[in-house]
Amino acid sequence: MQVSILGATGYAGVELLRILHNHPEVDIAYLTSEGSTGKKISDIYGHLRGIYDQVLISIDNIEKIAAASDFIFICLPHGHAMQVGKALENTKTRIIDLGADYRFADTATYEEWYKVKHIHKNTARVYGLAELHRQEIKTAKIIGNAGCYPTASILALAPLVKQHLIDPSTIIIDAKSGASGAGRSAVVANQLPELYDNFKAYGVASHRHTPEIEQELSSLVGKNVILNFTPHLLPMARGILSTCYAKLLPGVTAEKVDDAFNQLYASEFFIRLLGRGAYPTTKNVRGSNYCDIGWQVDKRTGRVIVLSAIDNLVKGAAGQAVQNFNIACGFDEKTGLSMTPMYP
Amino acid sequence: MQVSILGATGYAGVELLRILHNHPEVDIAYLTSEGSTGKKISDIYGHLRGIYDQVLISIDNIEKIAAASDFIFICLPHGHAMQVGKALENTKTRIIDLGADYRFADTATYEEWYKVKHIHKNTARVYGLAELHRQEIKTAKIIGNAGCYPTASILALAPLVKQHLIDPSTIIIDAKSGASGAGRSAVVANQLPELYDNFKAYGVASHRHTPEIEQELSSLVGKNVILNFTPHLLPMARGILSTCYAKLLPGVTAEKVDDAFNQLYASEFFIRLLGRGAYPTTKNVRGSNYCDIGWQVDKRTGRVIVLSAIDNLVKGAAGQAVQNFNIACGFDEKTGLSMTPMYP
Amino acid sequence: MQVSILGATGYAGVELLRILHNHPEVDIAYLTSEGSTGKKISDIYGHLRGIYDQVLISIDNIEKIAAASDFIFICLPHGHAMQVGKALENTKTRIIDLGADYRFADTATYEEWYKVKHIHKNTARVYGLAELHRQEIKTAKIIGNAGCYPTASILALAPLVKQHLIDPSTIIIDAKSGASGAGRSAVVANQLPELYDNFKAYGVASHRHTPEIEQELSSLVGKNVILNFTPHLLPMARGILSTCYAKLLPGVTAEKVDDAFNQLYASEFFIRLLGRGAYPTTKNVRGSNYCDIGWQVDKRTGRVIVLSAIDNLVKGAAGQAVQNFNIACGFDEKTGLSMTPMYP
Amino acid sequence: MQVSILGATGYAGVELLRILHNHPEVDIAYLTSEGSTGKKISDIYGHLRGIYDQVLISIDNIEKIAAASDFIFICLPHGHAMQVGKALENTKTRIIDLGADYRFADTATYEEWYKVKHIHKNTARVYGLAELHRQEIKTAKIIGNAGCYPTASILALAPLVKQHLIDPSTIIIDAKSGASGAGRSAVVANQLPELYDNFKAYGVASHRHTPEIEQELSSLVGKNVILNFTPHLLPMARGILSTCYAKLLPGVTAEKVDDAFNQLYASEFFIRLLGRGAYPTTKNVRGSNYCDIGWQVDKRTGRVIVLSAIDNLVKGAAGQAVQNFNIACGFDEKTGLSMTPMYP
Repeated sequence: MQVSILGATGYAGVELLRILHNHPEVDIAYLTSEGSTGKKISDIYGHLRGIYDQVLISIDNIEKIAAASDFIFICLPHGHAMQVGKALENTKTRIIDLGADYRFADTATYEEWYKVKHIHKNTARVYGLAELHRQEIKTAKIIGNAGCYPTASILALAPLVKQHLIDPSTIIIDAKSGASGAGRSAVVANQLPELYDNFKAYGVASHRHTPEIEQELSSLVGKNVILNFTPHLLPMARGILSTCYAKLLPGVTAEKVDDAFNQLYASEFFIRLLGRGAYPTTKNVRGSNYCDIGWQVDKRTGRVIVLSAIDNLVKGAAGQAVQNFNIACGFDEKTGLSMTPMYP
Repeated sequence: MQVSILGATGYAGVELLRILHNHPEVDIAYLTSEGSTGKKISDIYGHLRGIYDQVLISIDNIEKIAAASDFIFICLPHGHAMQVGKALENTKTRIIDLGADYRFADTATYEEWYKVKHIHKNTARVYGLAELHRQEIKTAKIIGNAGCYPTASILALAPLVKQHLIDPSTIIIDAKSGASGAGRSAVVANQLPELYDNFKAYGVASHRHTPEIEQELSSLVGKNVILNFTPHLLPMARGILSTCYAKLLPGVTAEKVDDAFNQLYASEFFIRLLGRGAYPTTKNVRGSNYCDIGWQVDKRTGRVIVLSAIDNLVKGAAGQAVQNFNIACGFDEKTGLSMTPMYP
Repeated sequence: MQVSILGATGYAGVELLRILHNHPEVDIAYLTSEGSTGKKISDIYGHLRGIYDQVLISIDNIEKIAAASDFIFICLPHGHAMQVGKALENTKTRIIDLGADYRFADTATYEEWYKVKHIHKNTARVYGLAELHRQEIKTAKIIGNAGCYPTASILALAPLVKQHLIDPSTIIIDAKSGASGAGRSAVVANQLPELYDNFKAYGVASHRHTPEIEQELSSLVGKNVILNFTPHLLPMARGILSTCYAKLLPGVTAEKVDDAFNQLYASEFFIRLLGRGAYPTTKNVRGSNYCDIGWQVDKRTGRVIVLSAIDNLVKGAAGQAVQNFNIACGFDEKTGLSMTPMYP
Repeated sequence: MQVSILGATGYAGVELLRILHNHPEVDIAYLTSEGSTGKKISDIYGHLRGIYDQVLISIDNIEKIAAASDFIFICLPHGHAMQVGKALENTKTRIIDLGADYRFADTATYEEWYKVKHIHKNTARVYGLAELHRQEIKTAKIIGNAGCYPTASILALAPLVKQHLIDPSTIIIDAKSGASGAGRSAVVANQLPELYDNFKAYGVASHRHTPEIEQELSSLVGKNVILNFTPHLLPMARGILSTCYAKLLPGVTAEKVDDAFNQLYASEFFIRLLGRGAYPTTKNVRGSNYCDIGWQVDKRTGRVIVLSAIDNLVKGAAGQAVQNFNIACGFDEKTGLSMTPMYP
């Protein structure tokens, strides 16, 4: 398969390269970057030296890129992918967008939260979270790769929502992410002296990943879910831990909770259920495509607490994209994704 | 004032020394340590070299220590302070226990959560959180210094609970702490390679600070509060951020929420209200006795989210102890506590 | 004393404020910032809220500032202080420049390494390292505060150079600094994901602190010293450790080495000698004005290895500036500088 | 190939498992641990869950283990491997020891620095650094895998020493390592609050890796080399950076230095030469088997400065062991080692 990456010099872009390097079915056609056109990618990222020394081109060459590519991974800020999607409408090239442009079934929601007009509304797109949408991904032309926080949060809550074990109106998601999630642009607030040995929340009651989580949980439960989602910034580079709370519906036992997880995820390779009373850590999944999940039932309060951990750049971005790509191509879903987490 | 510290070689003990060094009214009488008796404290902690080179003695000398001390700060694991308290019952020496032994009005709660028998039940004690118990602290013989997580969490929620603006049965506290909170003993799980670049929850639905928070909030609202408290371990040494959620009662506006904070804390020096829509960071209070508080009202869900940040070793331990000590002695509450936070 | 800070919103500027807050003889007259004129400094740095809420003005007001200030601390990039110095030539206002403009006795050296023309050459200036230049500082109009790396390195080597115990041509200084040394401007290379969990050298054989170290050591030994200085960037915010190597001259014993340190620094409050075989750590001096020094003599190679640790923002910048200020004002040198290091 | 790991629950042991998981020619026969016998390795290390759930056995089963294993990797503290080596003398099982027991050609040196008697002196062993000893590794029965610091330091200096471009008596190696190098046992000094945001030297003029480096450089230059080696502890988990200094011999130009590196390493896959004036970072090699090398010639002092970076657990331990294993088995040297470094 010939694949190209638009926006290859972001963290998701180079993580894709790390993963694809061990994918036996993939050749890299083109890599784009507007800020570093004409340079080798290994000039920007020294860790790629001798592995990928390809010269970066501009996205202006999109036609040439599309002609040479079976698949295009888009790692651009929101607003750009829909332009690419529209431009390639009549080509055979398939698209996996790691941004938000194609994540929403209802583009009005996208427009409301992202404050931009969607220019490619009436086209089929699939929400790129394999554990919930595997069938549709197989034949999709455009896949809107699930966001990082949503991946961790939806996977944590899906079994309980789907089995109607919790009251969806009581869902609270308190999530924490490493700073690579903020991307690579130069901002004073993300300088090491500012973030190191520091911890804070941001986007309280207003983060754009909220409607994405609500869309998927609403779809699972069959009614409109409104929830609280609070992201925080960890003083580290990679990893997301999502701590989710909800009231159990009357009569729901801890065993029923256990069953819900075991049933939904029994055959999911990338989901590791730690069980009730065991809790995930970000380091246990670092560098891998796993999502580790543990939970507890609090009899005092009648709540269930579900914790999930992913590497935001792998299962939360590039790894998930490759998982979706594998499904879309008919490859074994694990191809190129058999990395053991890196510990310590 | 002559003061002594029992268990001076823990992190809270040496933080007390750091603070007391700039307290004009304090002389250190004795420092105890069972593991390092006979050594200088600066042999254990090089940062104290030339500042405190006092020799550590054993707690076996408690009578001599008490005779020489107006105040004793106890920085020992729970279960020890009540023995000291009992032994000094008929002395004039006053006690501030940084552990849990004297935090509970109902010692049955203590016994249930700490799994030890309380041997000093029928004695007066005050919960050492000045913002809520200033009057009682003034004359207390025994002060049970508030815990680190409880300090951050109670201060965040007290105005809303006291003014009956939230439904107490909906309270969820998602808290995160630096690793110094786990103390200084050698444990594989706390080695740097294990905790660094890592994040995890622990004590889910079972942490001992839960009943302490519930005691204070119950007392404020006038009925029994049961809540969820989930602690997490940050990959850093100091700092607690507490993210608190609750449903607003019908008709409660954002302005009423603002008013509640402004009223309760208007004259509190150590509480800095950032206001609605502004959020605290742990680094902004590092090394200081401040508790920074910000909040948001989410109209979509009808919840209020309150965030508070403290330095767990200062306002969460040693600084709070000195604040209580100042009140108990009739000194200006800020004496020795005018440190500007250390940033970056 | 009325003091003003030019460039108050850099890390050295706010560290000055942290220290001066506890200085009984100081009032802040003006704070300048070109990027944030009109804002409160506590809007830029939340840790200062309620402590310093002063409005920032532009350096364009330099005449008004000078008229109101006994002392001006300059925390601007090199090239600016000499303009201020020249403009205030005929005023009574004294200057402590935390940059490089006034560190060199020979301005040709400055011009060669800093690639700018010096516009204020023929004026008296003192190298602001109190342990070596205390007398001259007392009456100086312009003090060129010693650089961070030079402070750690010069203090480590001064006793051996002064006593002619080492061959100066064999000096190698391998130094490591936290990232706050790079300042606060937004640079991709200093974003947390780039620096965190990472370590690297920079400025190899070309760093501008080299001639500053050479100037002082040359002056001590009475001949021209040329040496190697290699800075590295630690994945943390504060702290410098300098590891210095040199060949002992024939016949120099370990005891003579010990004596040299003890003699030169016997009455220096801010220098803590750990002795032979004991080594400093950056955390043991964090937040304080101490310079901790330890050393070893390697009989196998005939070399002495000296290690020194400072907080780059305190003894390496703001603390040293206040120490110089105290000397210049005739105050006790320790005034405002009695902070115990913050550990852990 | 059947391979077993003795001491599988150390950091080197689990890193071997991470690497071998992607090695197509390897089956794991047995894993030993004395502290966790009977447990699954994934009970100790959650990141291995679902990947390696094998039960740990005791080394008491060494005969059974040897009978089932073509190769045994030994990840035990020094002193143990020589017992295993002796016990397996008459078997066909080959050994790669990741400890120090078989690194020294002259066991007297081992006994002097490690303070233990060597019980397996008169047996052939190869120093396991492929770039220097590839031929001998091919047929070796016992391979003493090169140490972490020595790997980085020897590779940095080998070209210059071998080509007689530097004066070996002037070599100084200032090395810095992440804390995983200290292993996994519980020690107060290695707790996160102690090491985090901290930096220090240790083992000054006395570290056991000194004679190992000297052995290899002496062998290359053909005379006895004595040097200074100073290790430091970085506040991070993985990675070594070695900064090496030496005087160039008269007439040696920068170009000759460049040539030496290019010649010796032209066909070495795992050595990436960054060239003169470019410097390695630990993150650029993290998780990979690369050793990145850059250098500078300082005309002012006549010294060359060489910097090398490795991941101490990969090229400094497990990766190097697999590289040696591949050579010894006749496999492609890169088998299982094609991991792209993990960045950021």
